[in-house]
This record gives sequence, structure tokens and C-alpha cells, in this order.
Amino acid sequence: MNRPIRWIAPWTLEVLDQTRLPFAVEWVSLRTADHCRSAIVTMQVRGAPLIGAVGAFGLAFALREIADASGAQPPSGGTRAASAVAGVPANLDAVVAWLAAARPTAVNLAWAVTRVAEVVRTVPTSQRADAAWAEAVRIAEEDAAGNAAIGSHGAELLRPLVTPRRPVHLLTHCNAGWLATAGHGTALAPIYALHDAGVPVHVWVDETRPRNQGAALTAWELAAAGVPHTVIADNAGGLLLMRGEVDAVIVGADRVAANGDVANKVGTYLKALAAQAHGVPCYVACPVSTIDPATPSGDAIAIEERDASEVAFVTGATDDGAVTRVRVVLHGTPTANPAFDLTPATLVTALITELGVVPATAEGIRALMTGAAR
Amino acid sequence: MNRPIRWIAPWTLEVLDQTRLPFAVEWVSLRTADHCRSAIVTMQVRGAPLIGAVGAFGLAFALREIADASGAQPPSGGTRAASAVAGVPANLDAVVAWLAAARPTAVNLAWAVTRVAEVVRTVPTSQRADAAWAEAVRIAEEDAAGNAAIGSHGAELLRPLVTPRRPVHLLTHCNAGWLATAGHGTALAPIYALHDAGVPVHVWVDETRPRNQGAALTAWELAAAGVPHTVIADNAGGLLLMRGEVDAVIVGADRVAANGDVANKVGTYLKALAAQAHGVPCYVACPVSTIDPATPSGDAIAIEERDASEVAFVTGATDDGAVTRVRVVLHGTPTANPAFDLTPATLVTALITELGVVPATAEGIRALMTGAAR
Repeated sequence: MNRPIRWIAPWTLEVLDQTRLPFAVEWVSLRTADHCRSAIVTMQVRGAPLIGAVGAFGLAFALREIADASGAQPPSGGTRAASAVAGVPANLDAVVAWLAAARPTAVNLAWAVTRVAEVVRTVPTSQRADAAWAEAVRIAEEDAAGNAAIGSHGAELLRPLVTPRRPVHLLTHCNAGWLATAGHGTALAPIYALHDAGVPVHVWVDETRPRNQGAALTAWELAAAGVPHTVIADNAGGLLLMRGEVDAVIVGADRVAANGDVANKVGTYLKALAAQAHGVPCYVACPVSTIDPATPSGDAIAIEERDASEVAFVTGATDDGAVTRVRVVLHGTPTANPAFDLTPATLVTALITELGVVPATAEGIRALMTGAAR
Repeated sequence: MNRPIRWIAPWTLEVLDQTRLPFAVEWVSLRTADHCRSAIVTMQVRGAPLIGAVGAFGLAFALREIADASGAQPPSGGTRAASAVAGVPANLDAVVAWLAAARPTAVNLAWAVTRVAEVVRTVPTSQRADAAWAEAVRIAEEDAAGNAAIGSHGAELLRPLVTPRRPVHLLTHCNAGWLATAGHGTALAPIYALHDAGVPVHVWVDETRPRNQGAALTAWELAAAGVPHTVIADNAGGLLLMRGEVDAVIVGADRVAANGDVANKVGTYLKALAAQAHGVPCYVACPVSTIDPATPSGDAIAIEERDASEVAFVTGATDDGAVTRVRVVLHGTPTANPAFDLTPATLVTALITELGVVPATAEGIRALMTGAAR
């Protein structure tokens, strides 16, 4: 299984540096809580499920650093933690808040660190770090297994779109593949499942400015898996939908509210509107951990405003292969960079989760949460 | 008046090279019909009204080259035409078709070269080139004057959106400013008129991938004029509309069908859908020459498919100021590049023309064509 994260032994964690893809495939070692948080902030790791897992490991590192600082016995593995960085809070609740604030929109981050915190709260202080590490591993493993189930459920849902005449044409925005998770992916999981089953699939990949996760990550993933795909400007999807060249839109999510509203990468909403205008289904694939019953509707979701320079610059490879960034506006041109948008539940045909496919409604979500779905 | 085109004396034509903006301001000399056509194809000049004007001058050059080749007297100005390039057709109708095919979507190009051809058809062969040049000048002058009228009509339309609390927030896509015309612009003309009248205006500028006309051209124009603006990713407009941060969408057009359907830069449709979803007006500003009564609806408009490499690359300035292009996908990644899309008339609140503001309907357009508007 392809994974963007690997834990080789307790206290050894590596992640694929997604800011370097597709031009370089480099793993970086995360050795402290601050490393984990920084990797999330700088988007070396991104994708709601993946930042949840990395946040969980980050809490384990933080608890190890707190234990070290208090002069207690080192946790298992024998070595002391790498030097704690100034700024890492000194108690459990403060660490949870500090990690969860690394990125505000995706709920998986807060969900994962809170889950780890609840597990370790009843554990003696000296064993907390080890317990947190074990729980982080469980979160990652569960995510990958859940995404495999999303793949199966989603493939079943998409299979009726197959016709003898042409491949199934799917449009996706941003990256919701294995790179965004601890394995398999969310929106791409059903696509991989169909492809692996021999169903002819073609994917329209939105470039996804300003950070180009579609062009840089989704296209790279799909190429590696041999799935036919075409990268398009984010502007092109409306025309393709109008022309009948898209059979379904399928995206991931950063947070789903209790009423089914979806926060996802900015631009998702425009594709959902166009899909509805042409009677094309728009599916949101996500683990149940992305659904936040405590968020009543999209209005209550904080939209992260990222550094405006992400709009001013584009990173790519020059003709001689050097990776560099170029400024696409004159110096001093004002830019704005909201990183997510909200897609009203009414535009979402269904949610594809590891527990099954449900309507994007309060009832559908309640059924998931109470175990009544599937 | 700022203009991207200047005719200094008969047979001397210069255009601002829009492929070099905003990092370099360079005028290039067009001395043959083939120069004119190439400038249109490579988008050194772009914008429906401007390519109409350049096409008209191109026809004048072609007629001069035809006269030269036939050994007739050189036209006024004394000098012979620059060497005719192989590939320029040898008769009037063939030249019209050859120029009109340079870019298929905007109707202004075909309209302008046809207008020049009709004028010269009744003129003795030896005087055709001079007559064509004079008609091309008239087309350019009329365009600029018409756009000034678009500015007045549009400003009047937008003025009710002014509130004491905040500036009028307008969202535009691509570039429909003076760079796209022979002067004043279309969608930006009302914005300049409001700004010049002291009305506080702020413009959200869509980057407009893949060629970034918003980031490169519109932002440059607005900065030069002192109009407050913010460049955003093409993905961001849906969220801004949802948040109530846009009072009107205003764009230009490459062709308006007889029923009011609008072909414009790809991505326009997505913004029009989002505007409608939030009850925000979506205005299309264009000269009457952009309206094609011979095109019954959007379905009949050919959408230009441009070179797919435009999606694979982004041009910008490196940190040391060199202008270069970077590849944003791996070599060999398939890309697709439809350059325009279609916005159904039902999403267009009104057409702003030099003859007045009319609904985007068959009736509204008929009123324009018969002189009944205003």
C-alpha cells in the first residue's frame, strides 16, 4: 500500500514531503512535536486525514518531551526525546490546542489529537507518551482501512455510470488520494478500486490553484497507478460539465457539518454548482472522522486564510529541470488566499464513508453516527 | 487615452506585446499581414475588440502585398510592402477567411475583416489597400469611442450598488480592459468611469489560468489607474460571493449569440452560476460588434481549443527578476485547454453596450440591432 507516512519503530516517523512533489520524492524525518506541527503548517503533509494522523503522532512526541523535561524516566526506546523546542506547551490540554490550531478548517486534526488525549488522560504520566504513540498508530491504521472501505462503497456507487461506449469520466479537485491520508485516499479510493477492477476510468484533474495539489499531487498519483487522466485549469470544469464530458464530480472534504454542508479546498463549491446545473452527481468521499456533529452548518466552519503569497507565486520546473518559484503578479500587487470554501449540502449528492453511503443530510449523518447506516 | 495599438502613419502599426506584460512593456511593429495574423494567434494582441482591429489592419497589409505582387503601383506612402510571406492568400475572400480563422471564438475578428472587405470590394484594385487602412482606422476609433459609451452606461447601472458603508466590490475574469480593445476597455470601462467620478471601487481580479490575463494584465491596468484591486485564485470567487463580498460580476465577451448566450474566457460560466446562486448581478459589457445575430445560440459557437502546453506551464518572474516559464506538471502529463466557455443567457443580468443596456434576450438584442435601444 502506498502511504505518505511511515513509522518504522517507536519514535521514528517519516513523511513524504508534499511540497517537493512531483519533481522530487523526498522523505523527511519528524523527530519532535514541533516538527510535526511545522510539517502541517507548511503543508509538507496535507489532506484532512493525514494531518489528523501526523497531529496524533505530534501529541505523542510532545508528551515524550514533557516527560523528559520533568526528569522522569525516558519512555520506551531508551533514548531521550530530541530537544523540546521553545513554544511547545507543557501540559496535555495546551498541547492539544496548540496542535489543533495548526490548521483550523479540517476537523480531523482536532479529532485525532483529542482522541489521543482522551486515551492518555487516564494513563500514568510516565506511560503517556508510549500510549499516545500506540494510539497514533491505531488512528493511522484505521484511516487506511477505512479508506479501503470508502473505495469499495464508492466503486459500487459509481459502477452504474459505466457504459459500453466510453470510460467513466470523473472530475476531481485538489488531492484526496493516498497522499492526503494514511493510505488509499478518499475521493481517489473509488477510482483506484474501479481501475483495479478493470473498469475504464478517466479523471479530469483540476490544477487547484494556488497550491496546485491537482497538477502536482493527484496527477502524479494517478500516473503512478496507470489511471488515465487529464489536467485542466480550474476554470475548465463548467464547460466540460455543460458538454456532458463529466459523469460525476468526486472530491474529499476537510469538514462536514452536522447538516451535510462541506468545507473542502477552495473551488469545490464552483464545481458542485456546475454539476447540479447539469444534473451530474457530486460525491464527497471522507472518513466519518471528517464529519463534525458539533458543527451545526457550514456557517460555523472557520475558513483558513493562508499566506497571500501563495497566490502571487507558482512553483514549477524550469526547462533545465531546476525547481523554482515564479511571481505571477508584479511586486506589491494585493492578493487574497482563502484556502477552503463551503458547499451547501443541497449540492452534495451523497457522502461516501467507510461505514457506507448516506445522503448529505442531518438524517444521513445521524444514521452514520448511530451505526444505522449499512 | 491608453491604447494597446497605435497607427503612426499609413503602413506603420505598433502593438503592445501582451505576452510580455506585466514584467516588460514592449511595443512591437507589425509590418505585414502575416505579422498581424501571428500577433493574434500568439496572443501578443488579444481581447475580442482588439483582435478585430488588428485583423482589419491585417487585411489592409494583405491587400498592399497583393497589389505589390501583381506589379501594380505601390499604394500611398511610397514604399513597397514588406515582403509578402508565403501562405498569405492572393485574393480578397481568401484573405478574409485566412485572417478570421486566426482565432475562431470571438466574432469581432470575422466582423471587422468582413466590414473592411465589403468597403474595398467596390474600390478599384489599386486603391484597395489605402481604403482598407482607412477603414481599419475607423474601426479602431469607433471601438474606442463605443467603449467610452459602455463606460458611461455601465457606471450608471452600477451606481445604485454604492453604499455609504463600503466600496463597491466588483469581480472580473480575464482582461476586458483597455488592453483588450482599441481604448477604454469593455468590462473595465464602467469601473474606470466610477473611479474617475470618485466612487470608491474595489475589484476582485480572477488570476485567469491558464494564461493569467487577470493577474498579468487586469491587475497591471488597475494598478496603473490607481483602482484598488486584489488578485485571487480562480477558485475563490464562489466563497466571496457566498460571503456577500461581491456586489456584481462584470466581464467582457468574445461572442454573444442572438439569444443572449455569451462565449467568454473559460471560467466565466462558473462565476455566473455562483453569482446567480447568491442573487448577485452578472453583467456582460461588449460592443455591438461582439453580438452575432447569425449565431442563434451558444451551442453554435466554436470553442477554441488552445495548445495544451498553456496548462502545463506558468510564466512569471524569478526572484532575480528574470522572466521564465515553469512546468507545473511532470513532463508527459496530459493536459487540455479549452479557451472559452458558454454562459447561458439566463445567467446574464444585462448586456452593457455602447448603444445602451439591454436584457440578454433575443428581444433585447433585436432592439439593439434595430436601433430601438435607448
